[in-house]
Amino acid sequence: MKVAVLMGSKSDLPVMEESAAILRQFGVSFEMRILSAHRTPDEVASIARTARENGLSAIIAGAGMSAHLAGVIAAHTTLPVIAVPIDASSLGGLDALLAMVQMPPGIPVATMGIGKAGAKNAALLALSILSLADAGIREKLDLYRSDLKKAVLEADEGVRKL
Amino acid sequence: MKVAVLMGSKSDLPVMEESAAILRQFGVSFEMRILSAHRTPDEVASIARTARENGLSAIIAGAGMSAHLAGVIAAHTTLPVIAVPIDASSLGGLDALLAMVQMPPGIPVATMGIGKAGAKNAALLALSILSLADAGIREKLDLYRSDLKKAVLEADEGVRKL
Amino acid sequence: MKVAVLMGSKSDLPVMEESAAILRQFGVSFEMRILSAHRTPDEVASIARTARENGLSAIIAGAGMSAHLAGVIAAHTTLPVIAVPIDASSLGGLDALLAMVQMPPGIPVATMGIGKAGAKNAALLALSILSLADAGIREKLDLYRSDLKKAVLEADEGVRKL
Amino acid sequence: MKVAVLMGSKSDLPVMEESAAILRQFGVSFEMRILSAHRTPDEVASIARTARENGLSAIIAGAGMSAHLAGVIAAHTTLPVIAVPIDASSLGGLDALLAMVQMPPGIPVATMGIGKAGAKNAALLALSILSLADAGIREKLDLYRSDLKKAVLEADEGVRKL
Amino acid sequence: MKVAVLMGSKSDLPVMEESAAILRQFGVSFEMRILSAHRTPDEVASIARTARENGLSAIIAGAGMSAHLAGVIAAHTTLPVIAVPIDASSLGGLDALLAMVQMPPGIPVATMGIGKAGAKNAALLALSILSLADAGIREKLDLYRSDLKKAVLEADEGVRKL
Amino acid sequence: MKVAVLMGSKSDLPVMEESAAILRQFGVSFEMRILSAHRTPDEVASIARTARENGLSAIIAGAGMSAHLAGVIAAHTTLPVIAVPIDASSLGGLDALLAMVQMPPGIPVATMGIGKAGAKNAALLALSILSLADAGIREKLDLYRSDLKKAVLEADEGVRKL
Amino acid sequence: MKVAVLMGSKSDLPVMEESAAILRQFGVSFEMRILSAHRTPDEVASIARTARENGLSAIIAGAGMSAHLAGVIAAHTTLPVIAVPIDASSLGGLDALLAMVQMPPGIPVATMGIGKAGAKNAALLALSILSLADAGIREKLDLYRSDLKKAVLEADEGVRKL
Amino acid sequence: MKVAVLMGSKSDLPVMEESAAILRQFGVSFEMRILSAHRTPDEVASIARTARENGLSAIIAGAGMSAHLAGVIAAHTTLPVIAVPIDASSLGGLDALLAMVQMPPGIPVATMGIGKAGAKNAALLALSILSLADAGIREKLDLYRSDLKKAVLEADEGVRKL
Repeated sequence: MKVAVLMGSKSDLPVMEESAAILRQFGVSFEMRILSAHRTPDEVASIARTARENGLSAIIAGAGMSAHLAGVIAAHTTLPVIAVPIDASSLGGLDALLAMVQMPPGIPVATMGIGKAGAKNAALLALSILSLADAGIREKLDLYRSDLKKAVLEADEGVRKL
Repeated sequence: MKVAVLMGSKSDLPVMEESAAILRQFGVSFEMRILSAHRTPDEVASIARTARENGLSAIIAGAGMSAHLAGVIAAHTTLPVIAVPIDASSLGGLDALLAMVQMPPGIPVATMGIGKAGAKNAALLALSILSLADAGIREKLDLYRSDLKKAVLEADEGVRKL
Repeated sequence: MKVAVLMGSKSDLPVMEESAAILRQFGVSFEMRILSAHRTPDEVASIARTARENGLSAIIAGAGMSAHLAGVIAAHTTLPVIAVPIDASSLGGLDALLAMVQMPPGIPVATMGIGKAGAKNAALLALSILSLADAGIREKLDLYRSDLKKAVLEADEGVRKL
Repeated sequence: MKVAVLMGSKSDLPVMEESAAILRQFGVSFEMRILSAHRTPDEVASIARTARENGLSAIIAGAGMSAHLAGVIAAHTTLPVIAVPIDASSLGGLDALLAMVQMPPGIPVATMGIGKAGAKNAALLALSILSLADAGIREKLDLYRSDLKKAVLEADEGVRKL
Repeated sequence: MKVAVLMGSKSDLPVMEESAAILRQFGVSFEMRILSAHRTPDEVASIARTARENGLSAIIAGAGMSAHLAGVIAAHTTLPVIAVPIDASSLGGLDALLAMVQMPPGIPVATMGIGKAGAKNAALLALSILSLADAGIREKLDLYRSDLKKAVLEADEGVRKL
Repeated sequence: MKVAVLMGSKSDLPVMEESAAILRQFGVSFEMRILSAHRTPDEVASIARTARENGLSAIIAGAGMSAHLAGVIAAHTTLPVIAVPIDASSLGGLDALLAMVQMPPGIPVATMGIGKAGAKNAALLALSILSLADAGIREKLDLYRSDLKKAVLEADEGVRKL
Repeated sequence: MKVAVLMGSKSDLPVMEESAAILRQFGVSFEMRILSAHRTPDEVASIARTARENGLSAIIAGAGMSAHLAGVIAAHTTLPVIAVPIDASSLGGLDALLAMVQMPPGIPVATMGIGKAGAKNAALLALSILSLADAGIREKLDLYRSDLKKAVLEADEGVRKL
Repeated sequence: MKVAVLMGSKSDLPVMEESAAILRQFGVSFEMRILSAHRTPDEVASIARTARENGLSAIIAGAGMSAHLAGVIAAHTTLPVIAVPIDASSLGGLDALLAMVQMPPGIPVATMGIGKAGAKNAALLALSILSLADAGIREKLDLYRSDLKKAVLEADEGVRKL
C-alpha cells in the first residue's frame, strides 16, 4: 500500500471515494479506512505510528465538524498528512476547514479544499509526492493534466459555437 | 486534585491563569499542565485515561488555532471536559472555537467563550459540577454570584450619580 | 427528575429529541419543557431558580437565532447549564452559537455543537456529570463508548472489503 | 425620565456615553444604568416591567459578547427597545450583533451598528420616536441633520482646495 | 396611513407580507410599496421626504443583497426607519444585514433580524412606537404578548405529556 | 468583438449566460469562452495579452472557489477586467468573492456580486465603459434604466392594489 | 475633470488619497469630494446625475460601514462607478465590502479590495477605462506595469542574495 | 536546490523567513524568490515549468489578499505546491486562506495555516516529502519532533511548580 485514505465516519465515504477513484485511475495501491479520532483514538494513533514502516508514502484524512483526524495522525507520524475538510454541519465545512488548516507550528497538515474537489485533489497531491520517485506516475500526471486541458478546450469549442 | 487545567502551549498561560485564579479563590485543589495534543499526544491520552481513577472530576483544556486538545482528551475519558478556545491567530479565536465546539455526536466537549472570559467560566462550570456533591462549593457559588451582583449594583450607583 | 431538557420553541423539538433519546437509553429521568426566554421569561426564571431544590443536576437548553435561553437560565442557577445552538435562521446556526457560547465572565454556559449532534452531546455531557456520583451511569457511558467504537470498526471492516 | 440608557457592564460606559451625549445635547431627560442580564436579572426585569408606568418612551441597551440585555428587556415590556452591540471580545462585536439582532418573531429589538456609531444612533432613534409627539425634538432633529450636512460640506470645501 | 411597508423588489413580498399581516391584525392603517433605492431613487427620496407630513409614524423597509433602501430613506426623514434584511443571495442575508445595520453615526436605522422573523418584528416595533400615543395599541400589544405566552405554555403542555 | 465573456468551467455557463443575454440585448458583439486559469493557463494568458490588439474593450471573467481567472487575466492586460464570483462550493461564493476582490495594489479587477446578479451587472458595467465612446449604447443604457424603473413602478402599482 | 474621487467622510481621506496619488502620477485631471450618501443625499444625487455632461468618465466612491455611496451614485448615472470599501468599523471592512459589492441586478458597481490597495486599484481601473480612448494613458499603464515588474525583480534580486 | 520558497511581495519576507529558518536548520538547500503572480506572471510560470528539471522537490508559495501565487504555480507543474496564506489585509488572512485552499478539482495546492505558523509548517511538510527518499531528513524530523516534545514537557515542569 502506498497511500492510506482515512475518514472519520461512514457518511464521509461518498466524498472520500473521490480520492479512491483517482488513485485507482493511476494504478496506485491504497487502503481505505474508517477510523475516528474521537471514537477510535488508539487505532488512529496506531495506524499513524506504523505508517512509515508499513510502506505508506502519504496519508489522506477526511473529516467533518471539529475535524481532528488529520491533526491527530500528524501528531504520530512525520509522513505527509493530507487533510480533506468535509461539509458535515450547518456551517458549510468552515468548521472542518479551520479545525484542519490552522495547525500549530511544528506539526504540518496539507489541507485541501472542502468536499469532493478537495478529496480529488488530496489524491493528486499524494500522486505528486509519489511522482518524485516514480517516473511512471509523473508521466501519468502529465497526461492527466493534458486531459484536463483537453476537456476545457472541448468545452470552449462547444461554447464558442453557441 | 479535583480539577485539571491543561493548556496546549506556554503562551496560553496568561489566559488559563484565569481558571486557576477562580479555583484558588474557591479553595479547590487543581493541577495545571502544559501538554499538547500534537506534540505530546501520548501524555495527553495518558492523563485523560487515568483522570477518573486519579480522582479528577473535570478537565479544563485551553488551546488556540486548530484546537484539538479538548477533543483528544474527551476521546479518552467520560469525565466532563471543558474547552477554552484561545485567540492565538489572526482569526480572533474563531478557528479554535469551531475546532472545539463542533464535536461529532458521541463525544461531548463543554465549550466556553473565547479567551479570558471563557477561562474564568470554565472554572466556574467545573465548580458548578463539583457543587452537586459539595454543599460548601454550592454556598461559595451563591456568594460569588451575590458578589457579582453587588459589583454591578455598585457600578450602577456610580453611573447614576454622573 | 435528574435533568431538564428545555427548548425555546416547538419547532426545536426534532433537534432536542436527540437529547431525550440518549437520556431514555441511559434510563435517567428527565423532563422536557418548551419555554421561551422571550415569551415566557418568568416561567424560565422560575424553573431555573427552583431547579436545584427540585433535584435537577443539569439543565439542557436548546434555542435558535438570538438564543438567550441558556444564558437566562444560567443567570438564575448555579447548576450546570448546557446549551444547544439550533440552526433556525439563514445563518446556519452561527447566530445561536455565538449568542450562547460568548457568555460574559461569571456566568458559565457549557455550549455544544449546532443541531442534532450538539443535542446528543448535551445529554452525554449531563450523563458525564451524573457519572461522578453514579457508578451505574459511568459503566453505561463506558459501554456507550465501546459501542461507538464497535460501530466505527464495523464500518471500517465494511470499507476495507470494498 | 424619557429614555433609559442601560449597559451590561461598567466597561461599556465609554461607548454608551455616546448615547448620553446626544440626549443631553437635545435636552431630553434620561437615566443611565449599569445592569446585567446575567448578574442582575431581576433588576433588569423589574426596570423593564415598570418602564412604561415610569414614563419611559424608549430603552437603550448596550452590551457585548452573548449580548442578552436588550432581548431580556424586550421580554418584559412592549416599549421600543434599542440595542447597541459592543465590541467586547476578539470577534469584533459580531457576537453581540448576532445575539441582539436575530430576535425570534414576536419580541422586537431595534438593533444599531456596533460600538460608538451605534450608541450615537440609538439616541437619535429614541429622539426620532419622541419626535412623533414632540415638535421641539422634531425641529432639533432637523437642525441636527442640517448641522451634519454643513459639516460634510465644509469638509468637502476643504478637500476641494487641496 | 400610519405606517409604510416598503420593499426593494417584488420578490421581497412573501417576506414583507409578514409585516403587513401583523399591522392588519392590529387594525393599523398602512400602505405597501415596492420601490427600489437603485432603480427608483427619486421616488424613494420623495416618499421619505413627505412621510411625516403625510402622517406616517414609521417606515419599514425590507431589502436584500447590498440593501440600501432603509439607509436611503433614513437620509431623507427623521421619522423612525425600520430595516428588514432579506436573504436574497448565496450569503444567507449577511450581506443585507451588514448593509443595513452598520449605519454611520448620525442617521439611525432600526435593524431587525433576517427574513420573516424580522419582518414580523418590524411591524411589532412600529406598533410599539405607535403605542406611546395610543392606549388601544398598547392593550393589543399586551394581548399579543399574552397570546404568545399562551401558545408557548400550550406547546409546553403538549411536550410534557410525551 | 467588443467584449469577451470568459468562465473557468462549463458549469459556470448558466451564470455567465446572464452576461451574454445583456450583451445580446444591447447588440454588442462578444465572444464566450471557457478557459481555466489552472487547467489552461497559457490560453488564458494568450487571450489576455492579445485582447487589446484584438479590439476588445473589456473582459468579463466568471469563476468559483479559488477564483483566480480574473486576476490572471488582469496580470496580462491593462484593459478593464470585470470579475463575477460564482457560488460553486459549500461557502456560498465567499471564497470566490474574496479570491477576486482583494487584489494586491497595482492590478485592478472590477468585482461584481456573487452569481447571476453579478453576471448581469458585469455586462452592464462593460456597456457603461463602452458608452463613453458610443452614444448609441448610452441611449440604450438610459432606456434600460427607464425600463427597470417602469418594472418597479408596475410592481408597485400591483402591490398597492392588494 | 476626467474622474471624480468621492468619499463619505473626512476620515476616509488617507485611504482615498491613494486614488488621487495615482491619478496625479498619470497626469489625469480629477476632483476630490467629500459627500455622504446619508448626510448629503441630494448633493450626491446631483453630482451623479450631472457627471456625464460634466465630462467625467468614471466616478470613484470610497466609504465604510453600511457603505451606500457607490450604490447611490450608480442609481443616478450610467457612467462606470468604482467602489472602495473602507475598514471603518470593528468588522475589518467586511461590512463595507458586502454593502458595496452585492448590488442587485441592473445597477453595476465595480468593487475594489478593502482600503488603500483598493483605492490605488480604483484609480488604475479608471485609467484602464480612459485608456480605451487615450493611447497616452495606455502607454503610461504599460510603463506602470513594467515599473511594478522591475520593483518585484529588484526585490527578488535582493532576497536571492540573502 | 531542493526547495523553492516563493513569496508575492517583499513585505511577506518576515513571514516566509520562518520557512527558510527551518530548511536551514535541516541543512536542506533552497532558494528564496520574490515573484508576483500578478506583476511578474511570466517569471512565475517559467519557474514553475522548469522546477522539476531544475531538481526541485517542492515549491512553497506565500502570499496575501487574493493570493493566487500558489495556484498559478500549481497550474504549471505537477510537483507538490505548498501554500502559506499571509495576513496582509484587514480580513485577518481569511481572504488569502480561501483564495489558496479552495482550488478546483484537478490542481492540488497543499495549504498551511495563516502566517508564521503556516510558513514554518510549510517547510516541515516539504521536509516530510523529502524524507520519503532521504533517511537523514527522516531522522532529523524525528529529532525535531522529540525536541518539540521536550520543550512542551519542560514548560509543563515549569507550570507544575507554580
